Amino acid sequence: MADSGKGRILQFAPFQSSVDEGFWHKLSSLKLNKLRLDESPIPITGFYAPCSHPQVSNHLTLLAESLPAESDEEQSSLLASQGNRNRCPVPSILLNTNTLESFYALDKQSLLKAEAKKVWDDIYSGKVEEDGSVLLRFLVISFADLKKWSFHYWFAFPALVLDPPATLVNLKPALQCFTSEEAESLSRACNEWRSKSSTADIPFFLVTISSNSSVTLRNIRELEACQNNGQKVIFGFYDPCHLPNNPGWPLRNYLAYICSRWGLGKIHFFCYRENRGFADLGLSLVGEAEISLSQGGNHENMPNVVGWELNKGKKVPRCISLAKSMDPTRLAVSAADLNLKLMRWRTLPSLNLEILAVTKCLLLGAGTLGCQVARMLMAWGVRKITLVDSGKVSMSNPIRQSLYALDDCLNGGKFKAVAAVESLKRIFPAVEAEGVVMAIPMPGHSVSSQEESSILQDCRHLCDLINSHDAIFLLTDTRESRWLPSLLCASANKITITAALGFDSFLVMRHGAGPAGSIQNSQPETLNNVSAGMVNLSLSSQNDSQRLGCYFCNDVVAPIDSTANRTLDQQCTVTRPGLAPIASALAVELMVGVLHHPSGINAKAEFANSNDNGCTEQPLGILPHQIRGSLSQFSQMTLVGHASTCCTACCSTVVSEYLTKGMDFILQAINHPTYLEDLTGLTELMKSAGSYTLDWDNDSENDDNDDDCVEI
Amino acid sequence: MADSGKGRILQFAPFQSSVDEGFWHKLSSLKLNKLRLDESPIPITGFYAPCSHPQVSNHLTLLAESLPAESDEEQSSLLASQGNRNRCPVPSILLNTNTLESFYALDKQSLLKAEAKKVWDDIYSGKVEEDGSVLLRFLVISFADLKKWSFHYWFAFPALVLDPPATLVNLKPALQCFTSEEAESLSRACNEWRSKSSTADIPFFLVTISSNSSVTLRNIRELEACQNNGQKVIFGFYDPCHLPNNPGWPLRNYLAYICSRWGLGKIHFFCYRENRGFADLGLSLVGEAEISLSQGGNHENMPNVVGWELNKGKKVPRCISLAKSMDPTRLAVSAADLNLKLMRWRTLPSLNLEILAVTKCLLLGAGTLGCQVARMLMAWGVRKITLVDSGKVSMSNPIRQSLYALDDCLNGGKFKAVAAVESLKRIFPAVEAEGVVMAIPMPGHSVSSQEESSILQDCRHLCDLINSHDAIFLLTDTRESRWLPSLLCASANKITITAALGFDSFLVMRHGAGPAGSIQNSQPETLNNVSAGMVNLSLSSQNDSQRLGCYFCNDVVAPIDSTANRTLDQQCTVTRPGLAPIASALAVELMVGVLHHPSGINAKAEFANSNDNGCTEQPLGILPHQIRGSLSQFSQMTLVGHASTCCTACCSTVVSEYLTKGMDFILQAINHPTYLEDLTGLTELMKSAGSYTLDWDNDSENDDNDDDCVEI
Ligand SMILES: [Zn+2]
Ligand SMILES: [Zn+2]
Repeated sequence: MADSGKGRILQFAPFQSSVDEGFWHKLSSLKLNKLRLDESPIPITGFYAPCSHPQVSNHLTLLAESLPAESDEEQSSLLASQGNRNRCPVPSILLNTNTLESFYALDKQSLLKAEAKKVWDDIYSGKVEEDGSVLLRFLVISFADLKKWSFHYWFAFPALVLDPPATLVNLKPALQCFTSEEAESLSRACNEWRSKSSTADIPFFLVTISSNSSVTLRNIRELEACQNNGQKVIFGFYDPCHLPNNPGWPLRNYLAYICSRWGLGKIHFFCYRENRGFADLGLSLVGEAEISLSQGGNHENMPNVVGWELNKGKKVPRCISLAKSMDPTRLAVSAADLNLKLMRWRTLPSLNLEILAVTKCLLLGAGTLGCQVARMLMAWGVRKITLVDSGKVSMSNPIRQSLYALDDCLNGGKFKAVAAVESLKRIFPAVEAEGVVMAIPMPGHSVSSQEESSILQDCRHLCDLINSHDAIFLLTDTRESRWLPSLLCASANKITITAALGFDSFLVMRHGAGPAGSIQNSQPETLNNVSAGMVNLSLSSQNDSQRLGCYFCNDVVAPIDSTANRTLDQQCTVTRPGLAPIASALAVELMVGVLHHPSGINAKAEFANSNDNGCTEQPLGILPHQIRGSLSQFSQMTLVGHASTCCTACCSTVVSEYLTKGMDFILQAINHPTYLEDLTGLTELMKSAGSYTLDWDNDSENDDNDDDCVEI
Repeated sequence: MADSGKGRILQFAPFQSSVDEGFWHKLSSLKLNKLRLDESPIPITGFYAPCSHPQVSNHLTLLAESLPAESDEEQSSLLASQGNRNRCPVPSILLNTNTLESFYALDKQSLLKAEAKKVWDDIYSGKVEEDGSVLLRFLVISFADLKKWSFHYWFAFPALVLDPPATLVNLKPALQCFTSEEAESLSRACNEWRSKSSTADIPFFLVTISSNSSVTLRNIRELEACQNNGQKVIFGFYDPCHLPNNPGWPLRNYLAYICSRWGLGKIHFFCYRENRGFADLGLSLVGEAEISLSQGGNHENMPNVVGWELNKGKKVPRCISLAKSMDPTRLAVSAADLNLKLMRWRTLPSLNLEILAVTKCLLLGAGTLGCQVARMLMAWGVRKITLVDSGKVSMSNPIRQSLYALDDCLNGGKFKAVAAVESLKRIFPAVEAEGVVMAIPMPGHSVSSQEESSILQDCRHLCDLINSHDAIFLLTDTRESRWLPSLLCASANKITITAALGFDSFLVMRHGAGPAGSIQNSQPETLNNVSAGMVNLSLSSQNDSQRLGCYFCNDVVAPIDSTANRTLDQQCTVTRPGLAPIASALAVELMVGVLHHPSGINAKAEFANSNDNGCTEQPLGILPHQIRGSLSQFSQMTLVGHASTCCTACCSTVVSEYLTKGMDFILQAINHPTYLEDLTGLTELMKSAGSYTLDWDNDSENDDNDDDCVEI
């Protein structure tokens, strides 16, 4: 049995690959965050170790650490792991294609040859003596389907084919090839080699046996020296294979190296194998082989190459799906990220996904508009969403309010703010959504003294919510419920987006910066000096007209109580079904535009197809102030309206009055229908004429349409 | 005890009201379908009967039949129910307000007086003799909250107050007031009166007792005759009250009638009560009362009136909520209907909800567009929706595809067609939604002979689906998957709507009528003669250019296989999140427009704000051919593109070839990429020049934008 190899052609057990799931996760992350659509070869590092079990071969393994680092910190932690005896590094490249078609279309023979050529070159350049692992160079091709979390891949371990093939003179367990002194010395030398961090992961080495049976392991670059001093030299290598009659794959290129680099024709080799972490000479093999290269072994004539790994005996790639083993939330997050990142790679390199992910959005109203805005925000990658609504889901809601289903209406109905959050989490569990059940206090709805404290509590709560969020959407269905939020947003200088529906027309607009915001902007030195800003407020009310207006700036009337005595049809928000999704989509696009604009909330109004925007146009497109659309005309236009000096919500008089008097001011506005009009001079103005600024970007448009956008 | 009433003021047990749930359901239906926002008084009929149980008074009841009929058939069934002894009809009016505020604001005293005035007038006009029930006239005010299915209401039973009040001479069980012969005769007469359909529901009558103890019941109009022949006369009435010492409410106006009409000062009355369906003289009362009217009982001086019903002793209205007792599905249906009907009442009287409810919509694709289109259709009242998709819900879908949640993605994902239907039913259980898991066969994707039969089966299935639906939406995400549906729709002349998304622009269009459709339209005599139409097809290909184009008419290239070798980013449909909701909304609005247009599928293209449409404009607005929009420009425009004579999907050559060769033709188109181009002469055309008709409604627009709307 021990002699069974004699004279026969030497056959090698193929390398077996193994890929840790972490590798695929890391690859996915790398692709999403760094590589994107780049298909260039990625340098990766495989790991292997000598066989360590009598019945199991060791695999060549890819781990998360096999891939290049995404960041510098990560890189340094990889470096620290060098010298690991169970992870001998093997250089390799990964070709990750962008499509399954190009994966299959890869010219595998050429790729294999190209890698083998590197090995061949390294043999002649002397690189092998510096780093033997280059003899193990391998190649992986892959297609990562990040939508389905499945990975198609194929390993190639290029092996230079000796021609004629190597023949075995003999092949025996190492134990049978040495005296017991030699064997003991060999074991000790091996264990020492494997335990020193400077040699532990060096897979090719020389075993020299001196005449006194003392065995030494040396670096292969010392071969000439050993040959010169007449020691017996055995070519050792870490053999991943466990088979008793076959050496493993690494021996192939080793022999080619020995043959072509050193011109040796008959050599001894030592297949080093371990058991329980120590050299096992019963498992390890020693063989004698005759090797030659008919082409004469010169650099020009590279031998043939083999090496594509078989999959269950067939020449087909492997495929692994990780979807089932992954946490659904994590899958959902990565899938959602993928879509957004693809958008960035493909057309919007400047898309700032990071800012979208951290922007805190406050939605006032969780009805038709609120539901759809929340969905749109999630689709844009916004993760922090708070919905405020005092209502319950009623039977007529689910058909138009896209976060609710019939179940939410039963037994009196869930609170919308609660049901909406549940629904958002069912869609995307990683969303950080919160619901606040609260009515928005409204001006002109006078309150009794008993109600006063609860109304004030709501006012303060709303104020806190607005201060703790970055972008506020006004999506309620009455005009007057937008007044307090408009005022608070103007005071806090928050990004504010209004969407309002008529029967078949809509208005979507971003509010201009508040009066204090404008001042802060023009006088940066007062940024941290609010009171200084406030003093200036009343002095600079003429600045109002340079700011963009808020929802109330277009009005010459102050918000009044429009809910009382509304007829049945007015109580139901009657709009053409198509309006809300359109207005909601535009509202969110507008917010995304503000977040991406270098001037942010202070960005001036831009118009469609206007030359004005030429040089300032952002990758996302123009950033208008107002968009009005009509479903009956299938038309849409962009407009600008500047801040009114007697706006009941955002003019400097009102804002500074609020900042000075706080809740007292709000109570007065709530209780006295004409208070705001008197304060702002609107009452006076209405006596004279209704003059407010409205620039249309389309001169052919009639002003008649102006009333289209009515409140229901 | 029997004499306990002697000399005291006569007191009456108030009428008690009772409303059957059916009444509210019928009122809701009537309001939605007929009355709408009309607040005029509704004539209704209350029902009552004599007390029929010793311990329980009978109520005045409103049933579904109390309300006027919605249709003529219903009316006749109501007439058939006259003469029911347990449902003596009482005329009344219902004032149903549109708001809770106006309900409370009603001037109840005036209303009560106005009804009493009718009674008073009827007394003097002699109407009472014709129909005594007018003495029981009553009044109901209500507010029906159809959103919450709660009903606020208040009954008034106007009673003319005698001044001075009537006083009782005595009041005894009837049994004690008659001889046994008289009693027996009275019982017999009463039972006879109550069993004859001509008298059973006449609540006021005369009891006359002849000297031979024979008792007769007579109509009150016979009073004079009875008085003249000296018979003893007792004024009888159906008494709903069971109390032993009080007559019921109907006696009040009866006494006022007797006093003012007949000038009688001292009368006998008979409170007729039953037990187990027969006269019960032990329960019935006979009393003697003194009555007078100080004002002299002339028509000008109407007495005071009382009568608003108390609610648990208080002067407040009642409220009943039916939501909890109703089947959720029914509630959902009625709530959805309400919204649509309100839309019709308020602004679109010509809105044809009936046609929307029966239109069968076929959605090809249940992705971002398909989900949103299905939602929009439901919101418009479309109830028959079929979704076709071969895909499964993947992790990246829920965040953009509004019918799916994370649960649908687990374990490999549900089929979209299945999950979408489940979701639609959760939103609105009455929707008739079906899902078909099937891929759309595509041209240029050549198939092996094994696949052929399954592809042909899909083609036939698609053909059947298109034929069995009324409107087809093309919502897939590749150009070539739209080809076969476009052809089949053109052949079957179906309403066809395409929505296609680019990265930040969209195209929504309705396809023109098919070539056969145009011919049928212009030559109505061939309507039932398909082959005649077909013969004409090739002759009339010049007609193509007058038809509106289909999705492929704008192309100079035939659809090719664009899915092979798509890069990762192209496989994911990368669009700005706002696009799909906007395009979906417009697609559905377009279909609703076609359904409402008198020319339907043949309607010519209309433009926004164009004078051309002036006289033909529909209530829903204009009906454009194509709408293209850009999110980066926040712009939208309407366009027209006429049918191309070499369109690969809808030209007469292609359609007639398909109608002649059927599936063979389709197989050729699928297998041979250039077949369609060769057939239509497109190949030739491309050699010369790319000329196709595209009329822009906005001259200032650059043609550059034309490529915006690309397929991903
Ligand atoms: Zn303002
Ligand atoms: Zn066409």
